[in-house]
Amino acid sequence: MTVRYFEDFTVGDTFSTAKHTITLDEIKTFAHQYDPQAFHFDEERAKESVFTELVASGWHCSVLSMRLIVETSGINIVNGIVGLGLESMRWPRPTRPNDTLHVVAKVLECIPSRSRPGWGVIKMQWQTINQDTQVVGEAIPSLWVKCRTTS
Amino acid sequence: MTVRYFEDFTVGDTFSTAKHTITLDEIKTFAHQYDPQAFHFDEERAKESVFTELVASGWHCSVLSMRLIVETSGINIVNGIVGLGLESMRWPRPTRPNDTLHVVAKVLECIPSRSRPGWGVIKMQWQTINQDTQVVGEAIPSLWVKCRTTS
Repeated sequence: MTVRYFEDFTVGDTFSTAKHTITLDEIKTFAHQYDPQAFHFDEERAKESVFTELVASGWHCSVLSMRLIVETSGINIVNGIVGLGLESMRWPRPTRPNDTLHVVAKVLECIPSRSRPGWGVIKMQWQTINQDTQVVGEAIPSLWVKCRTTS
Repeated sequence: MTVRYFEDFTVGDTFSTAKHTITLDEIKTFAHQYDPQAFHFDEERAKESVFTELVASGWHCSVLSMRLIVETSGINIVNGIVGLGLESMRWPRPTRPNDTLHVVAKVLECIPSRSRPGWGVIKMQWQTINQDTQVVGEAIPSLWVKCRTTS
C-alpha cells in the first residue's frame, strides 16, 4: 500500500473505507464501557427515550469510523493518522443495530505548517454513511502529516 | 440526584467529574478495538513515532471523558446527555498510561429551540484535565435538553 506524505494530498482527493455492520451486542458493549445511558443498552427503556428505540452512542459511530479509516481507507499517512483536533463533529441521524456503515473521507485543505517546517496539516471531511446512503456522522479532522522533503 | 431541565442551566454553571486513572492495558485494549495504530499499543514502535512514547488514542480520552460526564458529573439531564454534535474537539497534549483524568464541564450558552418548542440546546465546554492540571482534551458539545414547561 502506498505510504503518503503531505505532498501526496490534493484538495478533493477522496478515500472510501470498507463496510462494517454494527451489531446490537457491539452497541450494548460500547455503551456499558463508555456511554452508559439506557437508550444505548436497554431496548425497553429506549422506547420511552427521545430516540423511541435503542440507538448506538454517537461516540461509537465515531470510533468505528476511525477504525475503518485506519484499517481500510488507504489514507496510510507515513507518520500515522494523528489528529490535532476536529473542527466539528455531528450526528445528523442515529446509528441503529445492524446498520452497515462505511466512511468517505475527502481532502478539504492542505496547509504547510508555519511553526514546524517539514510538516503540514491536512484538513479532511469524514462522512459516515449507512446502507440507505444517509449520513449518520460527520467530522472535520485536522491531521498532522510529515512532508517528503524538509526544504 | 437532581434531574435537570433546560431552565435549570445558567451560563457559567460548572460541573466536575470524579477521577479515573487510565492504565496501559486500557489504552492498548481501546487501540486494538478502535484506533489500531502502533503508537497506541506497542511501546517499542511508539518510540520511533511522532509521539516518541506510547500514548492513548485521542478518541479514548474523549470517550472516557463521556463516561465520567454521564456517571459522575451530576449534569443529569432529564432526557439524558444527547449530543447533537460538537463545535470543536482538540487534544492539546497526549494522554499517557497512568494519567489520572477528570472533566470540568462549563455552560457556555442556553439556546431555546426555534424548530421545536419545549426543547433547547445547551452548549458546553468539556475540558479533560490530567494530574498536572494540564488540559489533554477539550470539546464544545451542543446538548439537546427538554424544558420543564412547554409554553
